Amino acid sequence: MDVVLATLNANQPAALETLKSLLRIPSVSAISAHKPDVRHAAEFVLNHLASSGLTTELVETAGHPIVYAEWLKAANAPTVLIYGHYDVQPPDPLDKWVTPAFEPTVRDGCIWARGATDDKGQMLTHVLSVAAWLKSTGKLPINVKFVIEGEEEVGSENLDKFLNERKEQLRSDAAVVSDTSQYAPGIPAITYGLRGILACEVRVHGPRQDLHSGLFGGAVTNPANALARLIGSLHDSQGRVQIPGFYDDVQALTESERSGFAALPFNSDGFYASVGVKAGWGEADFTAIERSWARPTCDVNGMTSGYQGEGPKTIIPSWASAKITCRLVPNQDAHKLAISLKEFLTANCPPGCCVEFIEQHGCPGFVADTSSPFMAAAKAAIKSAFGTEPALIRSGGSIPVVATLKQILDIDTLLLGWGQTTDNLHSPNEHFSIADFHKGTLASACLWQEIANRACL
Amino acid sequence: MDVVLATLNANQPAALETLKSLLRIPSVSAISAHKPDVRHAAEFVLNHLASSGLTTELVETAGHPIVYAEWLKAANAPTVLIYGHYDVQPPDPLDKWVTPAFEPTVRDGCIWARGATDDKGQMLTHVLSVAAWLKSTGKLPINVKFVIEGEEEVGSENLDKFLNERKEQLRSDAAVVSDTSQYAPGIPAITYGLRGILACEVRVHGPRQDLHSGLFGGAVTNPANALARLIGSLHDSQGRVQIPGFYDDVQALTESERSGFAALPFNSDGFYASVGVKAGWGEADFTAIERSWARPTCDVNGMTSGYQGEGPKTIIPSWASAKITCRLVPNQDAHKLAISLKEFLTANCPPGCCVEFIEQHGCPGFVADTSSPFMAAAKAAIKSAFGTEPALIRSGGSIPVVATLKQILDIDTLLLGWGQTTDNLHSPNEHFSIADFHKGTLASACLWQEIANRACL
Repeated sequence: MDVVLATLNANQPAALETLKSLLRIPSVSAISAHKPDVRHAAEFVLNHLASSGLTTELVETAGHPIVYAEWLKAANAPTVLIYGHYDVQPPDPLDKWVTPAFEPTVRDGCIWARGATDDKGQMLTHVLSVAAWLKSTGKLPINVKFVIEGEEEVGSENLDKFLNERKEQLRSDAAVVSDTSQYAPGIPAITYGLRGILACEVRVHGPRQDLHSGLFGGAVTNPANALARLIGSLHDSQGRVQIPGFYDDVQALTESERSGFAALPFNSDGFYASVGVKAGWGEADFTAIERSWARPTCDVNGMTSGYQGEGPKTIIPSWASAKITCRLVPNQDAHKLAISLKEFLTANCPPGCCVEFIEQHGCPGFVADTSSPFMAAAKAAIKSAFGTEPALIRSGGSIPVVATLKQILDIDTLLLGWGQTTDNLHSPNEHFSIADFHKGTLASACLWQEIANRACL
Repeated sequence: MDVVLATLNANQPAALETLKSLLRIPSVSAISAHKPDVRHAAEFVLNHLASSGLTTELVETAGHPIVYAEWLKAANAPTVLIYGHYDVQPPDPLDKWVTPAFEPTVRDGCIWARGATDDKGQMLTHVLSVAAWLKSTGKLPINVKFVIEGEEEVGSENLDKFLNERKEQLRSDAAVVSDTSQYAPGIPAITYGLRGILACEVRVHGPRQDLHSGLFGGAVTNPANALARLIGSLHDSQGRVQIPGFYDDVQALTESERSGFAALPFNSDGFYASVGVKAGWGEADFTAIERSWARPTCDVNGMTSGYQGEGPKTIIPSWASAKITCRLVPNQDAHKLAISLKEFLTANCPPGCCVEFIEQHGCPGFVADTSSPFMAAAKAAIKSAFGTEPALIRSGGSIPVVATLKQILDIDTLLLGWGQTTDNLHSPNEHFSIADFHKGTLASACLWQEIANRACL
């Protein structure tokens, strides 16, 4: 173990260069023009795993390829599936970046680039820890199977097929995913719950083309007004979602969860100030932590309609569109909700317009058992690397693969986040602490030993 | 008179070439990059008037220049101010044009280009009729003063200053404006009423940058949802505007106006089918004609927020914006309404967001006296050129200068429209019937004689 940690400590500059090289590749899975870049990122990860001594395969899918790698020479030891993703969110708005999104830059102890923390940096900690074990000892204390995909940011459409088809090959005792955050600087965490998601687009169609708002206004239904009215009706004045049945299947928070969350250090004013607002808004009966970790939402991610250029243009637009995501909690079902939402919008659309509803992707929420031996191993590994016990938290984000791994392989996932919530994931100026990048790599190296120690079979 | 009409009949091909040359100039006043084109269009009109024998001046303003031209040699005859505009609406969405917006093309008896009818084509009828009078007779039966501006599509911001400063020079007995439409093909019309306008932009500001909708959704107020909610609250379920006091100053329609409108041929199904929708929506107590001619509205012209690219992006956008225009009727006041709207939006904005309200421009609605001698002259001129009595109608559009001319020069305006409501004003594929372009020019030539005949002083 010590020689592994020594290797990792000595190789920090090289590890950072590896991360920078990967961050330079603009692997934006949502934008078709970046398709070659996405493949380039996959090959980069694959080559790194192959040269570290793992058996690798670039698995083609209907979309972006999946990187698979395995090392299975630890007889009678547990097998861990390590999942991550090499694709990233779109970088826009580009003009808000201090340094360009795909020109990784070091400043203030962090590396700044799209994907720095979500998920290239966090995913690499496991690649680097496995490489360090093999380099310095020639073996690993457990067996590992890497599944690094390229469609996480667009709904992992082709991952399920892969997991189903390779079910036997992928059989493992637990999964490890680093795509979450610490609770706060100095408070590492294990995330035992995630929200699910329903992503969709709503288009309201009106006149066949833009019309003069003077000549037609009042007689012809305005699709931008209609869309706004529909979106406005999704919440009541207290922020409660009004889609019929929306809360029917929601798993309530336990009293111990609520008291656990309440005991965490949380400065409400500081939280809101950190994002530049004075206050929040939402379900009155829940705290801000509860609302963002364990309550479902219905958020508009983008809207577009009519004239968006300089100055006025007096038209009734032909159509209006909104991208909407609902964050879900156990036991809400994304597709069932999509049907309710579509029916609600269609039923309330005014005459003269019609609703087109595009269901993009969905996944359920997740809550893990916090008393498993794998959880104990993770606690010990994090304590070794970070010097403090991790907090048990939930996250409002969605990692669809966690539900899929449970469903297909019947394994639990350890969600071990090395980043911070303030790392600007999905925002301009995404970054990742270089110290946390290194501690995460050390914790990963310890984790393989801690799991072996507990013989979690 | 006959020699003037003969000249106009003989010169039809040249007149069409003149219009095409003017239409080729992309004089989009809203877009600063087109500033040189806007000036180019002004110079084109100025040169045409100068070479026809008028005294001309290109009047500089803080924005786009005003073309002024006069011929004042008809002693003891009335003086008519002819207003028009040489600027045009933005051409987008560009991909909807069958032939490019600034490459005028003749097909199906029409000329197709941005500005064909609004207002280059209609404005030119008066330039051409005056030129024909001077060319064929060396004089005009009345005195004329042309005021052709370049900021009509962006609120005529600098016109009032010009009209106020030149008040003495511009003194006239009536104004003539061709920037409206016939009622329908074969039913020429005099428009005796117009709607006013308030144009504004509403921006809702939330977090300082786009945020991850999983990590922050539920805790942080979403400005796109907030804007939609605010816009949705502008109307009740019956389409009645909910801004406090919105209808307080509205001048009611008279019974004779309502019966006059009801007597006009109007095929509701055909009207809605012509714009590609199945039905309308709006104040239940008024017909579609009444709602679009004589009732105020509140329409969104464009909306923008967050991610609008391909695929999903799971963010809470930092801000959301809507361009809004209210069409006004006598005696609503645009600025008073702007204050009410701003207060309404600000008061209803949820915590965690704030409203920025930008008042762009405004003008009141207008209703003219239908029994004046100028009105009689216009009826006679139109009957001569079109072979039928014009209908007396109102229009839902706004021509701010009409109210300004009344206020500053104390003159009424004859609104003589030669185009059709189906000419796609402000839309892709704007066009103008070549036959109506010619008949309008003939009617204009007759109008100067009919006014002189009635010695409308």
